[in-house]
Amino acid sequence: MSAATDLLEPLRRGEARALGRAISWMENGHPGARDLMASLWPHLGRAAVVGITGSPGAGKSTLTDQLARTLRAQGQRVGILAVDPTSPFSGGAILGDRIRMGRCAADPGIFIRSMATRGALGGLARATQDAIDLLDAAGYDTVLVETVGVGQDEVDVVSCVQTCVVVLVPGMGDEIQAIKAGIMEVADLFVINKADRDGADQVEREIESMKSLAHPRDWDPPVLRTVAQRGEGIVGLIDQLREHGVWLRAHGGLARKARERARLRFDSLLAEAASRRAREKAGPERVEAALQGIADRLVDPYTAVDDILDRP
Amino acid sequence: MSAATDLLEPLRRGEARALGRAISWMENGHPGARDLMASLWPHLGRAAVVGITGSPGAGKSTLTDQLARTLRAQGQRVGILAVDPTSPFSGGAILGDRIRMGRCAADPGIFIRSMATRGALGGLARATQDAIDLLDAAGYDTVLVETVGVGQDEVDVVSCVQTCVVVLVPGMGDEIQAIKAGIMEVADLFVINKADRDGADQVEREIESMKSLAHPRDWDPPVLRTVAQRGEGIVGLIDQLREHGVWLRAHGGLARKARERARLRFDSLLAEAASRRAREKAGPERVEAALQGIADRLVDPYTAVDDILDRP
Repeated sequence: MSAATDLLEPLRRGEARALGRAISWMENGHPGARDLMASLWPHLGRAAVVGITGSPGAGKSTLTDQLARTLRAQGQRVGILAVDPTSPFSGGAILGDRIRMGRCAADPGIFIRSMATRGALGGLARATQDAIDLLDAAGYDTVLVETVGVGQDEVDVVSCVQTCVVVLVPGMGDEIQAIKAGIMEVADLFVINKADRDGADQVEREIESMKSLAHPRDWDPPVLRTVAQRGEGIVGLIDQLREHGVWLRAHGGLARKARERARLRFDSLLAEAASRRAREKAGPERVEAALQGIADRLVDPYTAVDDILDRP
Repeated sequence: MSAATDLLEPLRRGEARALGRAISWMENGHPGARDLMASLWPHLGRAAVVGITGSPGAGKSTLTDQLARTLRAQGQRVGILAVDPTSPFSGGAILGDRIRMGRCAADPGIFIRSMATRGALGGLARATQDAIDLLDAAGYDTVLVETVGVGQDEVDVVSCVQTCVVVLVPGMGDEIQAIKAGIMEVADLFVINKADRDGADQVEREIESMKSLAHPRDWDPPVLRTVAQRGEGIVGLIDQLREHGVWLRAHGGLARKARERARLRFDSLLAEAASRRAREKAGPERVEAALQGIADRLVDPYTAVDDILDRP
């Protein structure tokens, strides 16, 4: 077992192996995790953190890859976190990510990691925040957080990035409906990917009408077009990401995002720590008896929980 | 403000208004919620609980509607819970559900409710479990739990139903990939909906090969075909749902599912209650100071949480 001090220096130098291990520490609740985070905490806040979300099949992975390569060509070091809440059982990445991780592993300036749910309450969003901080501490200039699907985990994740990119494609009306309610309020940029297909104009009209329904904001999210497969529109997207970053700094947006991230992390860590302590205090036998009592309908779950918390 | 005793009797008689109010109580943490749940707890366990999940655009809503109508025609009372984790901000149902709720509201034997995230940790899965129990207590014979998307909330929800139906459609290869990792282990039945389209045979082959990759189970999930829009295959699906229910009872499956549900509810309620108590003990000023300290990078979140829990 290594100590946090052994990881700290290679991590700060940006070594990928140290970074990979540190992320695993955070995911698995390694005893050294919190010391490491405490040591890094004052050094954070340098990286630009960009969330990339949208419907399945919108080409988010390709777009993320192209962004990473173009930023890389501009001299940046880039971290990619692929957030995949569909893997709570297998614990692995989805097939596409595995292939991509193999393909891009050659460039030491790009770090890719799939984040899968580990079963803890609030676990995926919390672990992703930890990983963002570690990439930041390791000197990565931009962290791209790509999410799969539209669940609460993703909403938690994208609420806390600095810039949230929502990716849509022509010809998927239903999917737009599906992401509309949750994501509209957090979108900073819209991208119509596969914009060479029929229907790009219609998607743009739909986005504009959605925007008019959302409550007005100081920042009006621009709508861009890309064909990620051919690398078209990527440089323009990067320009807009920078512009949003400038706007955030000028309008107190970074402090507001920092507060949101602080709240998310505090809430999930408090729930984790408080319930862990309650379990330890009660002991495994009483917890086991409570579970069996609920399953057998001898006691309702609210009463069982109070009993665990109240009885000395 | 009503007391739990005032709601109990109309709820047990199956009155929709009492049911709607009781679900809101559970969602919002009404003071009477836990008394109500404690009174109902011994009476539960009668309803068949069926989860319906799958990709966006697979026709889950139409399939759910058709199941409800056919079960209704067979003399059952049916509850539908549409679990929508995309609505944490707006707090509302997605458009399709709103339309549907209007259309079916005429039949007092069908109760429909959209469950949207309320922001609490583990909130959506917990609130959905509460709503299932309330429908059970109100004498609904079958509860259909339809989920949108593929996030952790849905996995939590479908892990705890008695029978989990995964809906796929021809011609959506990527989407199958997307749901594969998380849902395979909990699928009890596969439905190929819109089976009159080209590619149904290919989807069936893909499902069979996915099944062969999953760890072997005592129950081999059958693959059915439906065209929900025209009502085709619905009676056959209901027969298979019954068969799975019989199998569960014969093989201890109901007790196993009850344990899983007990664990989910205990875990989420313990996290909620333990962190609420910790907050109350610390007081809002210390919590506020901790949040600001994290955001300003004066203290890391792990240390801040320990400080809240440790300091008297």
